[in-house]
Amino acid sequence: MAKRLDLSGERFAAVYRLEGDRDRAEATARRICLEQTVEYPDDLIDCSDIREQIFGRLVSLEPSGEERFDATIAYPSEAAGRELTQLLNVLFGNISLEPGIRLLEFDLPPGLAACYRGPRFGREGLRRLAHAERRPLLCSAIKPMGLPIAELAELAYELARGGMDFVKDDHGLNDQSFCRFEQRVERCAEAVERANRESGGHCRYAPNVTAPFDQLSERVRLAARVGAGAVVISPGLTGFDAMRSIADDDDSSLPVFAHPAFLGGFSVGRDSGISHGALFGRLMRLAGADAAIFPNYGGRFSFTREDCRELVDGTLCPLGNLAPAFPVPAGGMKLENVEDMIDFYGRDVVLLIGGDLHRHGPDLAATCRRFASLVREISD
Amino acid sequence: MAKRLDLSGERFAAVYRLEGDRDRAEATARRICLEQTVEYPDDLIDCSDIREQIFGRLVSLEPSGEERFDATIAYPSEAAGRELTQLLNVLFGNISLEPGIRLLEFDLPPGLAACYRGPRFGREGLRRLAHAERRPLLCSAIKPMGLPIAELAELAYELARGGMDFVKDDHGLNDQSFCRFEQRVERCAEAVERANRESGGHCRYAPNVTAPFDQLSERVRLAARVGAGAVVISPGLTGFDAMRSIADDDDSSLPVFAHPAFLGGFSVGRDSGISHGALFGRLMRLAGADAAIFPNYGGRFSFTREDCRELVDGTLCPLGNLAPAFPVPAGGMKLENVEDMIDFYGRDVVLLIGGDLHRHGPDLAATCRRFASLVREISD
Repeated sequence: MAKRLDLSGERFAAVYRLEGDRDRAEATARRICLEQTVEYPDDLIDCSDIREQIFGRLVSLEPSGEERFDATIAYPSEAAGRELTQLLNVLFGNISLEPGIRLLEFDLPPGLAACYRGPRFGREGLRRLAHAERRPLLCSAIKPMGLPIAELAELAYELARGGMDFVKDDHGLNDQSFCRFEQRVERCAEAVERANRESGGHCRYAPNVTAPFDQLSERVRLAARVGAGAVVISPGLTGFDAMRSIADDDDSSLPVFAHPAFLGGFSVGRDSGISHGALFGRLMRLAGADAAIFPNYGGRFSFTREDCRELVDGTLCPLGNLAPAFPVPAGGMKLENVEDMIDFYGRDVVLLIGGDLHRHGPDLAATCRRFASLVREISD
Repeated sequence: MAKRLDLSGERFAAVYRLEGDRDRAEATARRICLEQTVEYPDDLIDCSDIREQIFGRLVSLEPSGEERFDATIAYPSEAAGRELTQLLNVLFGNISLEPGIRLLEFDLPPGLAACYRGPRFGREGLRRLAHAERRPLLCSAIKPMGLPIAELAELAYELARGGMDFVKDDHGLNDQSFCRFEQRVERCAEAVERANRESGGHCRYAPNVTAPFDQLSERVRLAARVGAGAVVISPGLTGFDAMRSIADDDDSSLPVFAHPAFLGGFSVGRDSGISHGALFGRLMRLAGADAAIFPNYGGRFSFTREDCRELVDGTLCPLGNLAPAFPVPAGGMKLENVEDMIDFYGRDVVLLIGGDLHRHGPDLAATCRRFASLVREISD
């Protein structure tokens, strides 16, 4: 061999849940060690450098249920390069295509962690922006698609007046012919700013940005210029590294709310895909999300309490030096759920209620004030 | 309402497979009509414009198995804007998070089709580049990760000499410290070019590009400048619209081989996710893939013959004016499978064999020539 491999020796670990008895699980684990690195038949590799330094290593294989094992596999940090796309590739590229393998969690040793800034604001930063030290943060959405911009702006105004910390676009609002991005953001940002002036509040408007690849950065910067206070990004639609790039952009410097659209393929299968904690917690943080929106338990999306618990842990657990992100349970939440949600999530949560705020009489700002005072009462 | 909605009336249809009896399936279908457009409670919408023009419409609900129905839902083209990210959002954004809903197929009426160029080369274009009118095209990969660039280039040379039409990077080759992108592409492109000069062949080298968001376009253009003849893109890692942008880039103008890495979450669940035809066929074409790599039946990834048949149909079926793409079955394929593969796929296929070409003696070019003559014999 012309040149010796000379890697640092640092490895990052991933835990996979494997279906089958011990023999089958071990065979799968050993296959993953090759599949996710060399993707080459073991017996055809005669180079000891590659074998010792590149191959994934099976660190442990522990039973975790009936006919089910958790395998911890350590990969060389250099295999993941310094790029999120390649880290995803090593963690779950080809093996995403095999049934019976679920990525449960992964860690981020120092060399790899140094490649990722993570959430710019995180929980502390969002609290500072919202001037809210201890209580849960409050969020609502402007919708539905099809409403004229003037009416969306009016809704944003009422929601801000009523004390929401964040008013976000519905994730279906894009740059449609009937609702242009630039005009919408200008009008809604202005409406929220006006409400803040009148109420002394600190509400931030978060437009939804799912632009074409080559216009995404510019659209976020445009949003920042015309007064947006955050952005909603769906990494399932844009790619995780697009969100990372937006979070890292010092020109816009906006908080990022991650939306789970199009990511369900990974979470609905119970014995394949990616765990709720790794997908909606760890990966979202790694890709710069300050807050991770997800379907709350008890709503229409079949997430369980355990899924949500695991997800919250993923937003908070040690992961390199990445700041914790806020969990944002959503999806058909109602005022009547608030007590239960605070009981479950505690204070460190962004409560996102959409349609239900429109069910309590014509004065939307007044309903928001009820929502806000309910939260204060319960969490004080 | 300040301004009337005035949409074109054009709608695009999506077909979803829904689990449950007729009542449950119909309730799910009606919920999808709202979830994927207004995401708002039906009874709170008092605007007839939104109801008539924005809501998804349930066109039909047909039984397709026991406790299983196929629902065709038509969405207004304007809801999807002119952006692939938003089209994905409408097709399968939120409902990807619900179990028991599988996206089977979608169409592309003229207004929507006009937003997408699709494959720049397609089947015809790749045949022209390969100077191969009728036979299956031949492809192999350079690997494993960890091999020095000089040895990867030597492999590329041998594979080109032996008559491969395309030599691709393994999708694990990125821009790692031990194998830098620019040097690898320069050396391998040069090696393939040298082989072509000597043999009179037309082999093209396809480097794997999974760059950070803000370097992706530049990396593809760099590849084009230093002699790459195609690129491998994994839209699961980069986002579908990133691939679309690369395919549409007139500065690089390279054929795109789409790799399925990280997309498995959508395909392994049988009653959720996205069908093989829609995901690896239609969506890949829509996002500009000239060739779609996927795990062949009988390999290690559990795709069935029926999955592959459906996938091939997705690369070929009428879809706007998009050119057909080549299916590229792969994943542990062997020389001994060639006859069966041609029997199954016919001539319109790119046969991708990796590791197995190294099992037939030390002369790789000679093994490739066997592969090529085998294909000619069988398909003549």
